[in-house]
Amino acid sequence: MLKLHHHPMSAASRFVRLVLGEYGERAELLQERTWEKRPEFLALNPAATLPVMIEDNGPPIVGATVVGEYLDETRGVFQRDRRLLPEKPIERAEVRRLTEWFLVKLDGEVTRYLVRERVLKLEMKPQEGGGSPDAAAIRAARANLKHHLRYLGWLAESRDWLAGTKLSYADLAAAAALSILDYLGEVPWDDEPAAKDWYMRVKSRPSFRPLLSERVRGLPPVHHYGELDF
Amino acid sequence: MLKLHHHPMSAASRFVRLVLGEYGERAELLQERTWEKRPEFLALNPAATLPVMIEDNGPPIVGATVVGEYLDETRGVFQRDRRLLPEKPIERAEVRRLTEWFLVKLDGEVTRYLVRERVLKLEMKPQEGGGSPDAAAIRAARANLKHHLRYLGWLAESRDWLAGTKLSYADLAAAAALSILDYLGEVPWDDEPAAKDWYMRVKSRPSFRPLLSERVRGLPPVHHYGELDF
Repeated sequence: MLKLHHHPMSAASRFVRLVLGEYGERAELLQERTWEKRPEFLALNPAATLPVMIEDNGPPIVGATVVGEYLDETRGVFQRDRRLLPEKPIERAEVRRLTEWFLVKLDGEVTRYLVRERVLKLEMKPQEGGGSPDAAAIRAARANLKHHLRYLGWLAESRDWLAGTKLSYADLAAAAALSILDYLGEVPWDDEPAAKDWYMRVKSRPSFRPLLSERVRGLPPVHHYGELDF
Repeated sequence: MLKLHHHPMSAASRFVRLVLGEYGERAELLQERTWEKRPEFLALNPAATLPVMIEDNGPPIVGATVVGEYLDETRGVFQRDRRLLPEKPIERAEVRRLTEWFLVKLDGEVTRYLVRERVLKLEMKPQEGGGSPDAAAIRAARANLKHHLRYLGWLAESRDWLAGTKLSYADLAAAAALSILDYLGEVPWDDEPAAKDWYMRVKSRPSFRPLLSERVRGLPPVHHYGELDF
């Protein structure tokens, strides 16, 4: 049995949920508010980051990249054509580069700031960092998003899927992050039609359904969030 | 033939050099000053980060984690007892967690700041971010280092090597970062004797020698930096 400590506004958590969905694996989802620094959670992961996965009460598997590799080694390897990492080392390197790009770089320049300022600060107590949103941080994140969206558009235009000819971790990582930004109405899709087409293709996969029906309390998504044709 | 774009003060670059050294691989080293944003380098890696490895004029392999996985798939797998990632997925997950801890978390909280403020700013032009060191950033990084050193000491006390019973990527990642901090005289080794013992064991490996003889122009290391018994 798999348990996944996650948060609906964590792109890294959404990435793992998509991978599990693609491989037909069920997991018990445990929502974690990392800013509360629960001692039981810190004992699982002293870095206090998400996601953390546990299989059969074993030791914690910490972080999206680490969980991704674990799932490739324990599930992906048996998936043949549906495996989300290619076979060749040099092709795997490109998938991993882009997965890191969307889960680390995009997160650190865009997603994390918009989520923090627009969502989490409303839920946090003042001593946890709560309060009114920082308009300068939001502006900076939005400016960065334009560059990232242009790169995404370029990838989507020049390849079938982001890392090559097949759906891979790179697509799920990018779509995990974009789905959060889209929930918040932050994505200027019309600027990058190829990125929009690619996102519609990923979004229509059955693995995406649970994410599209999820709601943050007090913050409904933009109207097209759950629509498969927008 | 392997080419490695690196910088002597980049922990992620040092990590890859140590892995190559352990596996007896030679690489042509190309020093990159990422802050200059050379167009030829940005074409290899638009994220402008180090390291970037190239094998036989193939596509770039970007980032320490991605290079580490590539080297495991193309070299480690043939190394038997000297392989730097264990065989079992759950043990690999622990090695990967710690590798990320030292190359990402420690880097983002300590190493990157001290290197930037104490070394790179002296080399950078004003328009590249050069100038006098920021004393507040240095103080914050030093405070963070104490926590990291305590965690390292705890790992070194409770296990033979940082991730278990064998030398692994986790040890090389930690030692890569610590060697830079040690060069700068930033490590209060006497606070954590178990961490010091562990570092002496890693430091005495032949793969470490090239790092210990390297010098940053105008900034000699602390006197014990190259000594194997300090």
